Amino acid sequence: MTTVLTGITTTGTPHLGNYVGAIKPAILRSQDEAMNSYFFLADFHAMIKCWEPERIAQSTKEIAATWLALGLDTDKAIFYRQSDIPEIPELTWLLTCMTSKGLMNRAHAYKAAVAENTDQGEDDPDKGITMGLFSYPVLMAADILMFNANEVPVGKDQTQHLEMARDIGARFNHHFGEHFTMPKTIVDDNVAILPGLDGRKMSKSYNNTIPLWLTEKQLRKHIMKIKTNSLEPGEPKDPNDSFVFDIYKAFATEQQVNEMKTEFANGIAWGTAKQQLFEMVNTELKAAREKYHDLMENPDIIEQELQKGAVKARAFASPFLARLKEAVGIRPIK
Amino acid sequence: MTTVLTGITTTGTPHLGNYVGAIKPAILRSQDEAMNSYFFLADFHAMIKCWEPERIAQSTKEIAATWLALGLDTDKAIFYRQSDIPEIPELTWLLTCMTSKGLMNRAHAYKAAVAENTDQGEDDPDKGITMGLFSYPVLMAADILMFNANEVPVGKDQTQHLEMARDIGARFNHHFGEHFTMPKTIVDDNVAILPGLDGRKMSKSYNNTIPLWLTEKQLRKHIMKIKTNSLEPGEPKDPNDSFVFDIYKAFATEQQVNEMKTEFANGIAWGTAKQQLFEMVNTELKAAREKYHDLMENPDIIEQELQKGAVKARAFASPFLARLKEAVGIRPIK
Repeated sequence: MTTVLTGITTTGTPHLGNYVGAIKPAILRSQDEAMNSYFFLADFHAMIKCWEPERIAQSTKEIAATWLALGLDTDKAIFYRQSDIPEIPELTWLLTCMTSKGLMNRAHAYKAAVAENTDQGEDDPDKGITMGLFSYPVLMAADILMFNANEVPVGKDQTQHLEMARDIGARFNHHFGEHFTMPKTIVDDNVAILPGLDGRKMSKSYNNTIPLWLTEKQLRKHIMKIKTNSLEPGEPKDPNDSFVFDIYKAFATEQQVNEMKTEFANGIAWGTAKQQLFEMVNTELKAAREKYHDLMENPDIIEQELQKGAVKARAFASPFLARLKEAVGIRPIK
Repeated sequence: MTTVLTGITTTGTPHLGNYVGAIKPAILRSQDEAMNSYFFLADFHAMIKCWEPERIAQSTKEIAATWLALGLDTDKAIFYRQSDIPEIPELTWLLTCMTSKGLMNRAHAYKAAVAENTDQGEDDPDKGITMGLFSYPVLMAADILMFNANEVPVGKDQTQHLEMARDIGARFNHHFGEHFTMPKTIVDDNVAILPGLDGRKMSKSYNNTIPLWLTEKQLRKHIMKIKTNSLEPGEPKDPNDSFVFDIYKAFATEQQVNEMKTEFANGIAWGTAKQQLFEMVNTELKAAREKYHDLMENPDIIEQELQKGAVKARAFASPFLARLKEAVGIRPIK
């Protein structure tokens, strides 16, 4: 049994890029009988950059409803809110004591923030930097080590965090016995990276996203806005140089992709291509969209699912943490 | 009602200096009807410097048994183990996100460690420094703010930590509403500082302590080793220049102090003075010593007391943390 762990920071609204690049493949993977999947809403991480309570609350709700609407099987996968597991911040403290400060000094996110200060001629390189930003690799290590995850699928920018989790876990093991599994970094280079409306990677920081749960009408409107070149209907088009095609590819079967290539060669009008893209995306999302809105109107159901996940996660975390505390000398009096 | 909070790091064995300077006055203060006292065994702090599990476990047991044997009223005061309150590390994370890194850069303990590295010509000023040492003022802030303590009695070297707790709490209040009381630093300059066997301040770091729970025989032996000058019996002695007198004073009534002054003027022999000191200390500790050994042989009773304290502490901490989480946007889905 392989334990796979994935966290989702609860600051944004799910968009098509998240769906294609992360959610859909993760839900698929979680159906594998040999996989023990943990998915968590990383609300403690959200607090690092986001001091807007309503945004965190709303994002948590939207993301949870999204995963459930898209068919995550919560009887098989463990789906929980990070902040419902008190063992995680408890473990974070134990690991904090085992983490060398030098390791955090070298973290990319922290170094980038310092470089920005320096570039702007600030006297204090740490200006505006919080301890949240500085020490969150320790929280991430706790997220991962808490469940003895074997595999953590991450983007390339996250590989350093995994190295750090291994470093911290290994130091704990060295001093207090072999408690933690060393998590393997899984970087999937085949992850589909969807272009946004303007052609850059779809990302809320570029403000170029197509939100996942638009109405049909809005979805169509967004898709119609995808940037194209000015080739006329009837002129042959290059599928390798088209954002419309890129997105189409992420949803279509191989056969459909080939058919669309032919249509491009035959000079399909951009409006027609976009209409076909809209129909394909809409067909894929239609049923889930209804489920999503249903969940958003019945928040108790989402909450119950997360409570169920917390019970399952704590069933592992709680006795494990007790063993870790025992190992460091924090024990019932005896 | 004034809430007073005191933590005791669980790495050492209680000695006479702790008793006179901290434990006895704290227990007395806790009997005041207007005081709501929290006393906690700071085992999460112990982990910062001590990676010896048996020592932490043993120290926790000894310190808990000591406070109970000396008559701490656990029906009135709240006596708990820090690690039994998961709300404390949870709050620590919320506060971590509100703490500027620059604040931690300026912490005395961290700066001292850096200075030591620099003095020793280390290339890396952070060599050997853990994130535990670097960030423990945030944990201390959580210890204090968790219970909205009004007063925190500390030594002079700790006043900076209280300033930091106020700074962090005020920043949280500023962003998320008035949740935290600003704790007042109480530096008691009248605290008796007991000399150790060699005349320096009694402290485990000087290895000059008289442990609190010696047998009568051992206690007498230790007291007989207190450093004196070489004045003979019959020669007048200066009470202002005598460690024996200093310790005597900390235990005696005013009348007894005056009587001993006369005896010093009359040239009491050092052996006789020490014998009288021994008898006085022994009389004061005799009943508690039996209780202490009784508790050490019945660890279940200690554990029960700490569990009782944890229930009382969490009765406050748990709903309070829920309000704090609500304030930052970490909420049940609704």
